[in-house]
Amino acid sequence: MEREQYLAAIKPRMPEKRYIHTIGVMETAMELAKAYGEDERKAETAAILHDIAKYADIDWMEKIVHDEKLDQRLIGWGSELLHGPIGAYIAEHEFGIVDEDVLNAIRFHTTGRVGMSHLEKILFVADMIEPNRHFDGVERLRKKAQKNLDKAVSACVRHTLAFLIDTKQAIYPLSIECYNDLMKREDSEG
Amino acid sequence: MEREQYLAAIKPRMPEKRYIHTIGVMETAMELAKAYGEDERKAETAAILHDIAKYADIDWMEKIVHDEKLDQRLIGWGSELLHGPIGAYIAEHEFGIVDEDVLNAIRFHTTGRVGMSHLEKILFVADMIEPNRHFDGVERLRKKAQKNLDKAVSACVRHTLAFLIDTKQAIYPLSIECYNDLMKREDSEG
Repeated sequence: MEREQYLAAIKPRMPEKRYIHTIGVMETAMELAKAYGEDERKAETAAILHDIAKYADIDWMEKIVHDEKLDQRLIGWGSELLHGPIGAYIAEHEFGIVDEDVLNAIRFHTTGRVGMSHLEKILFVADMIEPNRHFDGVERLRKKAQKNLDKAVSACVRHTLAFLIDTKQAIYPLSIECYNDLMKREDSEG
Repeated sequence: MEREQYLAAIKPRMPEKRYIHTIGVMETAMELAKAYGEDERKAETAAILHDIAKYADIDWMEKIVHDEKLDQRLIGWGSELLHGPIGAYIAEHEFGIVDEDVLNAIRFHTTGRVGMSHLEKILFVADMIEPNRHFDGVERLRKKAQKNLDKAVSACVRHTLAFLIDTKQAIYPLSIECYNDLMKREDSEG
């Protein structure tokens, strides 16, 4: 499918603001892909589809988790955690995407995970720094993303966890595994 | 054993500063025990012994984790995470303490856990707010501890996690389980 077809497919599934965010993620992910030698078309596809399940029915998403034997820890965490894995499910089953790297980028774009691929890192970072994001510290994250993708991932993970703690929200286990792995790597690098 | 005997037993095992901290934790834990209707002698014993393993040999501590089939996730986390569970081991095997609540208070005083007892909460909070602690925000934690023990636990856990993220240190799984449980409870309380 071409970009315009993907965009036409996602537009009715989300509010205008989320669609504008998605366009921002797409542009940022493609810039990062170009800068870091990743396939730009893969980045484009993953970015356009990354939030496709954001407004899907929660009962339906939990049923997919159950039926498809996805990570059962997802049950009870709501759309914020479900929409990545279910987005990957939709990308595969509705759009026929078979590239596991694209599917994983969608699947783990909210939580991160240990051992993220290049493409996964690009979508993870692009989602946080796209031009329509305006939180305190976003400029620092944007600068890091221009210099070093791994350090940008690490800074984005730390920013997300600090935000969750500040706002008293639970933290999904994958995110902590990802954070701990990154901190141990940085520590061993000195 | 009496207080003076416990104090004499721990003094040679730690630097002066840690001993002074321990006295502070003991006094604070006993005040909290009195305020919240917990057994003051249990609080005293748990507090005096809580850091007894802080300066123990790491190889020896890891051997105990292995031989005693303690939580194997402790391996590799160093003294900061080992000294709670190993402190409980010493309290039991060297000092003959059989009260599981006292042992658990020592065991989980660094990480917290889901379903902490009254005594566990008291030691956990006392360890953070005793008079020799001087970090930013400690006064706020002290005030919370005077008003509501559960809210003080929650604030201490959040403070600790934010500190670990700020200083790029890994977070032990039990701490996140504890944090998530507290946040879900607070959320359901509205």
